Amino acid sequence: MSISNLLKPEVIAVIGASDRPGFSRSTCKNLLYTEDPRRVYFINPKKDELYGKKCYNSLSELPESPDLVILCVNAGLVPQMLREAAAVGCRSSVVYASGYAETGSDEGKKLEKELVDLCDELDMLLMGPNCAGYINFIDNVYAFGLEVDKAERTGRVGLISQSGQVGLNAVDMEHMDYSYIISAGNSSVVSMEEYFDYLVDDPDTAVVSLYLEGVKRPKDFVKVLEKAAKKKKPVVILKTGRSEKGSQIASSHTGSLSGADKVFDAMFRKYGVIRVSDMEELLSISQMFSILDKLPEGPNLCVMCLSGGETAISADFGEEVGLHYPVFSPETLEKIKGLLPSYSTPNNPLDTTATLAHDPEGYANLIKTVMGDPQINMVVCGFTPHPTLDNDVTMHIAQGLVKSKENNGAKPVMMMPFMECSRAPEIRNLLRDAGIPILPTSTYGFKLIKHLADFVTYHCMEKESACGPSDESLTGKPLKYLSEFESKKKLAEWGIPSAESRLVNTQEELKTAVEELGFPLVAKICSADILHKTDIGGVRLGIRDMAGAEAAFTEILKSAAKHCPDADIEGVLFQKMVDKGLEIIIGVKNDPQLGPAVMCGLGGVFVELFKDVALCPAPISRKEATDMVLSLQSAKLITGYRGSAPLDLEALVDVIVKVGEMAKDQKNSLVEMDINPLFVYEDGVCAVDAVLAYAE
Amino acid sequence: MSISNLLKPEVIAVIGASDRPGFSRSTCKNLLYTEDPRRVYFINPKKDELYGKKCYNSLSELPESPDLVILCVNAGLVPQMLREAAAVGCRSSVVYASGYAETGSDEGKKLEKELVDLCDELDMLLMGPNCAGYINFIDNVYAFGLEVDKAERTGRVGLISQSGQVGLNAVDMEHMDYSYIISAGNSSVVSMEEYFDYLVDDPDTAVVSLYLEGVKRPKDFVKVLEKAAKKKKPVVILKTGRSEKGSQIASSHTGSLSGADKVFDAMFRKYGVIRVSDMEELLSISQMFSILDKLPEGPNLCVMCLSGGETAISADFGEEVGLHYPVFSPETLEKIKGLLPSYSTPNNPLDTTATLAHDPEGYANLIKTVMGDPQINMVVCGFTPHPTLDNDVTMHIAQGLVKSKENNGAKPVMMMPFMECSRAPEIRNLLRDAGIPILPTSTYGFKLIKHLADFVTYHCMEKESACGPSDESLTGKPLKYLSEFESKKKLAEWGIPSAESRLVNTQEELKTAVEELGFPLVAKICSADILHKTDIGGVRLGIRDMAGAEAAFTEILKSAAKHCPDADIEGVLFQKMVDKGLEIIIGVKNDPQLGPAVMCGLGGVFVELFKDVALCPAPISRKEATDMVLSLQSAKLITGYRGSAPLDLEALVDVIVKVGEMAKDQKNSLVEMDINPLFVYEDGVCAVDAVLAYAE
Repeated sequence: MSISNLLKPEVIAVIGASDRPGFSRSTCKNLLYTEDPRRVYFINPKKDELYGKKCYNSLSELPESPDLVILCVNAGLVPQMLREAAAVGCRSSVVYASGYAETGSDEGKKLEKELVDLCDELDMLLMGPNCAGYINFIDNVYAFGLEVDKAERTGRVGLISQSGQVGLNAVDMEHMDYSYIISAGNSSVVSMEEYFDYLVDDPDTAVVSLYLEGVKRPKDFVKVLEKAAKKKKPVVILKTGRSEKGSQIASSHTGSLSGADKVFDAMFRKYGVIRVSDMEELLSISQMFSILDKLPEGPNLCVMCLSGGETAISADFGEEVGLHYPVFSPETLEKIKGLLPSYSTPNNPLDTTATLAHDPEGYANLIKTVMGDPQINMVVCGFTPHPTLDNDVTMHIAQGLVKSKENNGAKPVMMMPFMECSRAPEIRNLLRDAGIPILPTSTYGFKLIKHLADFVTYHCMEKESACGPSDESLTGKPLKYLSEFESKKKLAEWGIPSAESRLVNTQEELKTAVEELGFPLVAKICSADILHKTDIGGVRLGIRDMAGAEAAFTEILKSAAKHCPDADIEGVLFQKMVDKGLEIIIGVKNDPQLGPAVMCGLGGVFVELFKDVALCPAPISRKEATDMVLSLQSAKLITGYRGSAPLDLEALVDVIVKVGEMAKDQKNSLVEMDINPLFVYEDGVCAVDAVLAYAE
Repeated sequence: MSISNLLKPEVIAVIGASDRPGFSRSTCKNLLYTEDPRRVYFINPKKDELYGKKCYNSLSELPESPDLVILCVNAGLVPQMLREAAAVGCRSSVVYASGYAETGSDEGKKLEKELVDLCDELDMLLMGPNCAGYINFIDNVYAFGLEVDKAERTGRVGLISQSGQVGLNAVDMEHMDYSYIISAGNSSVVSMEEYFDYLVDDPDTAVVSLYLEGVKRPKDFVKVLEKAAKKKKPVVILKTGRSEKGSQIASSHTGSLSGADKVFDAMFRKYGVIRVSDMEELLSISQMFSILDKLPEGPNLCVMCLSGGETAISADFGEEVGLHYPVFSPETLEKIKGLLPSYSTPNNPLDTTATLAHDPEGYANLIKTVMGDPQINMVVCGFTPHPTLDNDVTMHIAQGLVKSKENNGAKPVMMMPFMECSRAPEIRNLLRDAGIPILPTSTYGFKLIKHLADFVTYHCMEKESACGPSDESLTGKPLKYLSEFESKKKLAEWGIPSAESRLVNTQEELKTAVEELGFPLVAKICSADILHKTDIGGVRLGIRDMAGAEAAFTEILKSAAKHCPDADIEGVLFQKMVDKGLEIIIGVKNDPQLGPAVMCGLGGVFVELFKDVALCPAPISRKEATDMVLSLQSAKLITGYRGSAPLDLEALVDVIVKVGEMAKDQKNSLVEMDINPLFVYEDGVCAVDAVLAYAE
C-alpha cells in the first residue's frame, strides 16, 4: 500500500479527542486548519462537542470511513482501536503513545513487536509509535501532536526528524517553508526509509532534509540515496554520532544501531548527499534549495559587497572553504568599470562601493553585467539588511536584486548578511517571491554555497553503486586470518601485484626458491597465527647468498618454535627484496550496516598522526579511486613534489579499484583486509605485506 | 591631551548643520538624543533655525566654548574651520570629509599630511578624516554621520571599526548593547591604537571589539594588547587578510600595511586575544562578555538539553571544538537522578528529557545541582526558544534559568538555541537582566564557548612580552647570508648545540680535523653563496677513512669551482656524522611590523605537506615553547608514540627559547634564520644545518 494513503488522507478521525492540554488537544486544534474541516471527525464517547464540532462515540458511527485515524490513547488501548479502524476499512494510523522499544525494556520491545505483527495482520500503515506525527503543508493536514501556529509557509522542504523536539522546533521557525514535516518516532511499521523514499519521489518536495540518529534499514536507505542521486534531488542530512560521545548518546536514544560514522560519511559522498553539522545549517540550506528557482550551472561565484571590509571578509571565507572566484573577463571588467566610480578597482569578490546603494536600477545593471560573464555561475550579494524595509538602502538593494532576476536566463542570486538580523518577514518575502534566498551569516553562509557548488558538480554516473552489506550478518562470527602467503595468493586472484615469493618447508624447496627468485631476498615466518612477525624474530632482511638463506630458514623456524610453540606454521616465506617506494596503506572494513568500504592513506606513522586517509564504499570506479588519492593531503607525494618525478598514480588507482572489486565479490565473508605497505614507484606498485580476515 | 575630551564632550557644535539628506542632517538628528540638547549648537550662516534649534553664524557667536566641533564641510573648508575652533578654545574635532590618503592619490596624501601638521600646530584632537564618527552610549553622545534609531542599548561592548559600513551595520543590530562605537576612518591624527587604549582603560567597557584591516602603529598596538592581557580585559578582533585575496583587498582598502597575517595570529595568541572569523562571531561573543555578570572560573562546562537529539548534537560539537565535559561526581549524579524520571541515564552533556519543561522551579533546581558539582564551571542550556514568550515551555525554561542565578555563588549560565530565532526582545531582555546571554546557534555557539574557555585559562604571566620590530626598518636592505660554518658559530654564541665541525682549507687542516673529530665524517662545501649544497655535488656522506676524507676534500672543491665559479668559498666543512634523530625545523622571521617570530615544525617534506608548524613572537618563555611543540599534530613523535621512547622535549624547548633570545637580541639585524634539520634524540638535540641572514 502506498504511504500517500497515510500522508494525504481526505477523511481523518481523531480517537480520544480532548480539550485537556496534551497531544490530543493540540491535534484537534491543528486539524481545524485542514482545508475542509467537515471531513475531520472527533471521537470521544464522553463528549457531545469539541471546538464546535460534533463528537462521535465510535468509528462505526461516522458518516464516512476515514482514510486516517489518529490515536490519542495509551498504549494499552492501541490494539483495540486499530482493529476497530480496520473494521471500518481504514488502513492508516498515527500512534502517539509511548512505552514501546524506546524505553529499552523487554516489556516495551515485546509490546512493539506485537504492534508490528498486528499491523501486518490488519494490513495497516502506522506512523509511530512514540511519535509527534506529521504536517502535510501541501494539503493542509496537521496530524501533529504539538500545537503549531498556522502560517503561510507552504514551501518545498520535506523534513524527516528522528527527534520530536527537533521536529517541533523546525515547525516553529517562521522563516522556513515546508512541504512536509514528519516526526515518525520509532518507525517500526512504516519505516523512516519509506518516508524518505516518498519525499524523494514527491513532486512538491524540492529538497529532502533528514535529522538522523541511526538507520534501521540500511539497504533501503542506500537505495533511496541512489534514487535521489539519479534524480538530482538534493538530500541534506544532519547525522549525529560524529564524535564518540555523540554516537553513544545517539544509540542510547533511538535504540537503532549507529553504523560507524565514517562509513556513513563515505556513503554520503558516494551519493552526493549534503552532510551538515547542525540544525541551523540543515534548515538554512534546505530553505535555500526550496527558494532557488533554478540551480547554478557550475560552482563559480561572484560575491559583491558595498564596502571593502565586507569584500575582504568574503575573500577570506571563499578561499578557506575552497570556493573559486573567477577573474572577470576583459569585457565584463570594462562594463563594470563603466558602472562604478573611477576610484574603484573592480575584482572578484567585488567591492561595489556604496555609490549604487540608492540606485536599484544601477545596482540591478551591475548584477546583470556580472551574470553576463560566462565564468560566473551565481551572484551573492553580501549585504546586511536593516531589520525593516523603511531603511532606504535596504529597500534599494532588495529592489535591485529583484530587478536583476527579471530577465530570462538570469542566473541564481542570493543575499548573504554579515550579521544575523535578516529574518524580517517583509524583506524575506519580497526576495523569496523572486527566487532569492537570504542565507545565514558568513560562517554558515559560505559553507552553504560550498555545499551548493559541490552539489552541482556531483555526477552520479562517475560513481559505482555501493554493493551493500553481507546477506547474512557476519557480526559475532569467529575471524579467520590468512597468512601472508595465503593473503597474497588472494590478492593475485584479483590481479593485485605483490612481491614475488615462495613458501619453503624443506632444504630442497629452499634451493628451488632461491634459483627462481635470485638474490637479494627477504625471509619471513608464514603463519596465520603470527601477525607481528618482527616481534618474535620472524623476519630476516637483505639475504645475499645461499648460506644466508639457509641460516635464515633454520633460525626463523627455531625462533617461531620458541616464541609461538602453538602456532600453526605454514613455512618460511622467501620473497624478492623490493626497492623502497612511497608507503601507502590500503584496507577494507566490512561495515555491518553499509557493507565493505575501502580505505587508502599515507602509510607509516603518519597514517595515525595526520589521519590522512580516504574512504569509499565498494565497488569503486576509477574516478572515485582517483578522487580518493587526490583528496589526501599527501597527494603531492604521488603527483610530484618539489621537482621529484610523479609516481604511478594509474597503477595505484588500479589497485584501489581491484580491492573494491574484491571487497564486493567477497562481501559475504571478507571482514577486514590490510595491504600495508603497498609501495608506489614511478613505474608500478607492489604489495609488500598483506593480511586478510574472513568470518567462519 | 586625553582623548576623553574628544569622546566625552559636554558642549558640541555642528559646523555646516543642515536638513538636506547626508552626514550633516544625520548628525543633527542624532545629536538631539544628547542628554542635554541645550548644549548642542548648530552653525549655519544661511539658516535661522534647524529642528527647532537656533542656528548660529559662526563659532565665535556661541554662548559657550564647545568641547567638540563636528565638521560637516568639504575637505577644502576643513583647515579654516579647525583654526576657528582652536581660536575659541576648542581642542577636539570630528571630520567626515573624504578625499585624503584613502584615495591613494598623491594629492590626497598631501592633503592628509597638511591636516596632521595643522592639528599638531593647533594641539587639536581629530577623529577622521573620511570617518563616520562615533557614538558614546554611556553619555548619549551620537556624534555619528549616519542616522541611527535611538534605542535603550547602553551596554559594555566597546567597538572600533576600520570600515564605516561595518560600523553602521553594527549600530543597526538591535540585540547589541554598546558603550562606544567608533568608526574612525583614516585615524591619522588620533590613531586607532589610541581609541583602543582608551577603551581598554574605560571602566564602562567590559570587552573591546575590533574590526581591523591593518595596523599603522604596531608598537602602540602591541602595547595595548599587553595592557589588556594584564588587566584581563577581553579583546576580540576580526582581522581580514587571512587569505591571500583578502589581504590584497584589505591593504588596497585601508592604505595601511598588512603585516604577515600568521605573525598577527601568533601575537594575538601571546596576548590572549580572541580572534574571530566574521562579524556575527565578533558581535555575538562581545555581547556574551557584556552580559555575563562574571566569568567562569575554569573551562569546563555542562550542556543540558530537553531531548536526546539536541544532546547528541552538543556532544559532537563539544568534542570537535575541544571542550571538556567533565563526568559528574557521584554525589551530583545521585542528586540529578532524584530530579529526573527513572528511565533517564544522566550524563554530561545532559539529556534532561522534557519532563521539567513546565516546571521552572524544578528546572532551576536541576541547574543548581549541576552548578554544585565542583568540576563544572558553567552551564549551557541548549534550547531553541519560541519567537515569543506566550509559548509556555519557552517561558518556563527562561524562568528556570533566571531562578537558577538567584543564589549567591551561582556560576555562569547561558542559553544556546539550535536554530536562529532567538533575538526576540522580550526573551533576550528577561535573560539579559539576569546576566544570561543568548548565544548564536551551534557552529557559532560552541566556538564562542571555546573562546571563553581559552580566555579564562589564559595567563599572561606564562608568556614573555614581545620585543617588537627593529628600531629602524630593515625592509629593502640587502641581505647577507652566513655560511653554514658562520651560522653555527652564531648558534653556539647563544648556546644552541650543533654537530662538531672543522673548516678545512689545506691538507694540514684536514689532518688535524680528522684527528680531532674521528670517523665517520660528513664533508660539505662552505660558502655563503651556495645555499643548495647537494645540487652542485657539494656534499659527501659516510666518510670512513683518511683516503675518503682526502678524496672528498678535493672533489668537493673541484665541483664547487666548476658549478659556482664566482662563489666565495670559505673551505670544506668536515663534520662528525651524527645519528639520525627526529627531523625538526626551527626558523625565525623578522616581521617588519611585529618583529621577530620563531617557527617550529616537523621537518622533511612534511612541513610543507601538512603545514604542521607553530609560530610565536620572540622572546619565548619555556611554557610558550612547550605549548608550541605540543600544539603540533606530530607532537606524539616527540612525547612518545606507539610504545617508542619519548624524545628529549626539554632539550628541544631549550633550543626554541634560545632561538627566541637570539632573535630578540639581534632584532635590528637578523632578518631570517633556519635550523633545518635539528635532530631530536631521546637524549639531547643537534643542529645539523643552519643558515642565518642579516640586513646589511
